[in-house]
Amino acid sequence: MVLVRSLNEHVGTTVTVSGWVEQLRVHGKVAFIVLRDGTGLVQGVLAKAEVSDEVWELGTSLTQESTIRFTGAVREDARAPGGHEMGLTDVALVSRSGEYPIQPKEHGVEFLLDHRHLWLRSSLQRAGLRVRSEVQQAIHDFLYERDFVRVDTPILTGSIGESAGTLFETDYFGQKAFLAQTGQLYVESACPAFRKVYCFGPTFRAEKSKTRRHLTEFWMVEPEVAFADSDDNMNLQEEFVSYIVARALERCGEELEILERDPAPLELVVPPFPRISYSEAVERLNAEGHPFEWGNDLGATDETVISGWFDRPVFIYNYPAKAKAFYMKENPEDTRTVLCDDLIAPEGYGEIIGGSQREDDHDRLLARIEEEGLPREAYDWYLDLRKFGSFPHSGFGLGLERTVAWITGRHHIRELIPFPRMINRLTP
Amino acid sequence: MVLVRSLNEHVGTTVTVSGWVEQLRVHGKVAFIVLRDGTGLVQGVLAKAEVSDEVWELGTSLTQESTIRFTGAVREDARAPGGHEMGLTDVALVSRSGEYPIQPKEHGVEFLLDHRHLWLRSSLQRAGLRVRSEVQQAIHDFLYERDFVRVDTPILTGSIGESAGTLFETDYFGQKAFLAQTGQLYVESACPAFRKVYCFGPTFRAEKSKTRRHLTEFWMVEPEVAFADSDDNMNLQEEFVSYIVARALERCGEELEILERDPAPLELVVPPFPRISYSEAVERLNAEGHPFEWGNDLGATDETVISGWFDRPVFIYNYPAKAKAFYMKENPEDTRTVLCDDLIAPEGYGEIIGGSQREDDHDRLLARIEEEGLPREAYDWYLDLRKFGSFPHSGFGLGLERTVAWITGRHHIRELIPFPRMINRLTP
Repeated sequence: MVLVRSLNEHVGTTVTVSGWVEQLRVHGKVAFIVLRDGTGLVQGVLAKAEVSDEVWELGTSLTQESTIRFTGAVREDARAPGGHEMGLTDVALVSRSGEYPIQPKEHGVEFLLDHRHLWLRSSLQRAGLRVRSEVQQAIHDFLYERDFVRVDTPILTGSIGESAGTLFETDYFGQKAFLAQTGQLYVESACPAFRKVYCFGPTFRAEKSKTRRHLTEFWMVEPEVAFADSDDNMNLQEEFVSYIVARALERCGEELEILERDPAPLELVVPPFPRISYSEAVERLNAEGHPFEWGNDLGATDETVISGWFDRPVFIYNYPAKAKAFYMKENPEDTRTVLCDDLIAPEGYGEIIGGSQREDDHDRLLARIEEEGLPREAYDWYLDLRKFGSFPHSGFGLGLERTVAWITGRHHIRELIPFPRMINRLTP
Repeated sequence: MVLVRSLNEHVGTTVTVSGWVEQLRVHGKVAFIVLRDGTGLVQGVLAKAEVSDEVWELGTSLTQESTIRFTGAVREDARAPGGHEMGLTDVALVSRSGEYPIQPKEHGVEFLLDHRHLWLRSSLQRAGLRVRSEVQQAIHDFLYERDFVRVDTPILTGSIGESAGTLFETDYFGQKAFLAQTGQLYVESACPAFRKVYCFGPTFRAEKSKTRRHLTEFWMVEPEVAFADSDDNMNLQEEFVSYIVARALERCGEELEILERDPAPLELVVPPFPRISYSEAVERLNAEGHPFEWGNDLGATDETVISGWFDRPVFIYNYPAKAKAFYMKENPEDTRTVLCDDLIAPEGYGEIIGGSQREDDHDRLLARIEEEGLPREAYDWYLDLRKFGSFPHSGFGLGLERTVAWITGRHHIRELIPFPRMINRLTP
């Protein structure tokens, strides 16, 4: 069996390929069968005069998504889908498809999501998810090449993440367990073992948000580096994001084309990224007629305005403490703020990274835990890290689906995860 | 700041390193400080005559796991931990550690697991988890190099898995959701999009098992290949496992040495692996005086006996249908059995892979679902894959922790995951 991807090595020879019928057109005594084998598309040309009646009968009665094998001589044809055509000498049926639910017409999105297990086969979905897969490998490669050790953090936790109230809960042999919102707290504990570490896996938020940028289950990569401060952290982030984008441009050109993604804005994504402090951003927002009160968190609309000032991703750094999580380090130069950054993607794609230097002072961290009304006991082990050899360290979390939505130029992040989970969507 | 890993590039020069105090020995007017920086160990030699009183005082009063920076000239010393020594000119304290709970003595395992966030720093734990990280990268690389597309499958599912009764359940905005036991069923649906696919993430079993080979949360990689039969599947598995083992041998020599892992049995792990059918295995068990009734599932003890017949991992294939999951394809040559395999690691490490050709006949699959008393409705989408272009396909699941336990030669798989979850263990 030959793969469609490698047909260019077989021009002039007769081969067999296997896959699914994307399209069938019959014009009198010639039929065109477009086959998808998972590595590409190829058009088979079936001429009534050149095959048996049985093969002609079968080939011209194929239903969409039927599984077939076909055999023929490979020739180049720039006009054909995939750039090759096969002059068929045989067609064999593996499995006849029933009437395929997804037709080349506009379906409602709920219908498509109900059929996600089939919708995955559609060209835009294939392209988007292939970019996701490439981005994931790029993430692993970047960190591996820089000697990060991967440290998987638990999903089932006795305690907690950033905030209560948005946790999924399960019974764990009589105890209460919660699904992790982040791996960060755990991954911090591995810094004294490996210095540079990361986790990458699914995280959970029982949020009732229904926006195009929210999922209840999404993937996040969270690097953490001992002895790195907030500036080092932003340096790492811009290198990381630039690497990922360059890799997608380099290896997913075909997919980006299918997605009609203009590569020009992505080609600008190289270090250094602009950096603007929260306070500067607030000042400029007000000066430009976007009233905004210092102390509030920036919303999606504010982020879009700010990102519009720049041609590439922008860091907004050092937010007010009260707008951010308890574990961020107090800014010694302005104790109302913490040493942190959000990285805002261009073109309205919003926040793709949240990062910070971590509070490494035991007493200040404890005070913040108490201020937030978090259950002290659940954080005892986390506080231990500040008792037994505390160290300056910083890290960040990059949301995979938001990043891939930006790179692929898709509006809804739900298309960039194979099986999206949202408030009203738990199946298939 | 210089990393200990790269000290060999700095021999003869004066550098500063930062990290944690592993050990301090004071002999009269000379003190030896072993520092761990997460990339290696280096011994600093502090001579009273050569530093200020303050530095001598500080250097000789350091507590274990205190965070420090020290500065000195690098020299090679084969006897020193890490192969280098530094003649110290300065020592600076970053953070003094309280009395460190883990001492160089035998602690009970429950105590160590209670302090898992600190135990990670111990040398055997570091070595084991570094091998885990390398194996994970090897898994991604192997599959990426062979054009597999990564397809992440959901943790939160409306139902499903291999068997009810061992599912963790959570409230999902008023609906019941279950934590996935496997990604396989989902990943199968991506075959018609990408042909070769895989998922790799945490999976969950609410099993009350308390053996050294069980976790309630563990990582599994699950490749799936369209148009592959059971033999192709075993070929892929032996290539995959051999690649992983070779990679660990090549890049984790130091860790395997720390773990006192004899590499000799691992060096034998090259294709082809021996293959024995379930029925042959049962016959031979009986012939050798291990009474075993055809039709039962093989237990850990049986597997150990069978693996003892061979010098490398062994496939046991085509088990009785009733001992295996509903989705495995009926063996046309003996319909009492299914086309499947378990891969048994040598040296008593047991099953590390379960694989099978999948049932691709809609009606036989439905009959199996009904026989097992599974909720039909929950499998409607999975049955769709047999209605709309069914195709022969095979895949397998490799358990990460079991594989790494075997490679590292550790007895308990709980040491090969950063934060193990067992029936009585949900924290830290």
